[in-house]
Amino acid sequence: MQLSIVKIGGNIIDDERRLSAFLDGFAILPGKKILVHGGGRLATKIAEGLGIRQELVDGRRITGAETLKVVTMVYAGTINKNIVAGLQSRGCDAIGLTGADGNAILSHRRTTGASVDYGFVGDVDAVNSSLLTSLLMLDRVLVFAPITHDGKGQLLNTNADTIAQELARALAGTFETSLVYSFEKSGVLRDAGDESSVIPRIGPAEYRDLKASQAIFAGMIPKLDNAFAALRSGVGKVIIGRAEDLPQLLAGKAGTTIVNE
Amino acid sequence: MQLSIVKIGGNIIDDERRLSAFLDGFAILPGKKILVHGGGRLATKIAEGLGIRQELVDGRRITGAETLKVVTMVYAGTINKNIVAGLQSRGCDAIGLTGADGNAILSHRRTTGASVDYGFVGDVDAVNSSLLTSLLMLDRVLVFAPITHDGKGQLLNTNADTIAQELARALAGTFETSLVYSFEKSGVLRDAGDESSVIPRIGPAEYRDLKASQAIFAGMIPKLDNAFAALRSGVGKVIIGRAEDLPQLLAGKAGTTIVNE
Repeated sequence: MQLSIVKIGGNIIDDERRLSAFLDGFAILPGKKILVHGGGRLATKIAEGLGIRQELVDGRRITGAETLKVVTMVYAGTINKNIVAGLQSRGCDAIGLTGADGNAILSHRRTTGASVDYGFVGDVDAVNSSLLTSLLMLDRVLVFAPITHDGKGQLLNTNADTIAQELARALAGTFETSLVYSFEKSGVLRDAGDESSVIPRIGPAEYRDLKASQAIFAGMIPKLDNAFAALRSGVGKVIIGRAEDLPQLLAGKAGTTIVNE
Repeated sequence: MQLSIVKIGGNIIDDERRLSAFLDGFAILPGKKILVHGGGRLATKIAEGLGIRQELVDGRRITGAETLKVVTMVYAGTINKNIVAGLQSRGCDAIGLTGADGNAILSHRRTTGASVDYGFVGDVDAVNSSLLTSLLMLDRVLVFAPITHDGKGQLLNTNADTIAQELARALAGTFETSLVYSFEKSGVLRDAGDESSVIPRIGPAEYRDLKASQAIFAGMIPKLDNAFAALRSGVGKVIIGRAEDLPQLLAGKAGTTIVNE
């Protein structure tokens, strides 16, 4: 049975028109499906409005106790529930979840070994694939906010790309799983300024060449590293491309497909 | 099969110690269970912090578009997910939901016939008892935030007492259902200032007498009206009492039990 796990980035969530086009495509995808959404600018806006100072260390945001409250509100409340209601209006029967719900994703606070205290940030320990399979078999679509828990009552802010990847790894044994990282660009580009320069297919050898020639921009490297890690753990294919092109991405007609050979 | 549907009020949610005592009791309740939580003061605090003016008409709060965003954040985000994580830490496998999730509770915006435009407030049309039964049969506890949807993409603020009652009515055909309204008082009191004056049992005749003699305070009347309506629609029993006494309430050893004869 086919399962598509689709991650959408913050730039799509921040743009009502693009989000709507993405949801149109997501709603009509065949098979089982899971959407994982990131945060976007709303959390920063709300934090600023409430006078919560954003702490940065080496340019990275730290999730202090007050910031955790804001991201929980915005990610699990505003964004998650508006996406769920939007999918319901498109006839797509979605249930919104965090990692705390049904103990779906257990994590631990990132402290040991880290040179920086990132605050209430979680690294994933376990995905409850039996719960997720049960919910998918009830013909429900799952929508994950990037919040997990430690099983001791603590919610933790968790990277949405990582959640998508961990879900794909955990479910690859049960479903024929495709993992899609969708965002505002057309795919992995040969020329960062040229949306028509999409590389349709990247295997490990091409990836080494692209990195060596510095032909891909830095922000893409963690995504591609994650993609290859997912393929090694049993995920069938990983696709990177434009959120509005979702059905074409899965049909292999747009974006970049990452393969393991 | 037994099902307990428990509503907790805002005063309990606002008090960390009382909420914790309530969750201790809720986690150990036997049988299937659903928790419905209200809002509390946090939404007002966040709205004030963001400079969102609270509109009041005849002393009642109006849910404008900005207020709806705040209650969605606070109820479905902060409060719901912290309760879920708290139950998980007590070994109680909970899933948090709004009415939009799985199309659990469909409502319509309250406009027709209303003398006042309450804004984005929903009156319940339908409860998806088949979904709720499926989730309960997966041995999950459900935690509802007081937010519903209209099926057209619009989230709506909905009274938590009403949600608890509608869930009880919808599930009374499938489960032997008890409905508990838990709050900061010991039950329905003969003397509002005396917590030891709990009336243990109220039937329709006693209720008429109590209303006629003005022996119960005004805020209790809608709760009791709802309780009798629930009993008439097949709910087994309705109990009103202190949130921290939950196991005793269900055992008939504390609070007020409302009966239909």
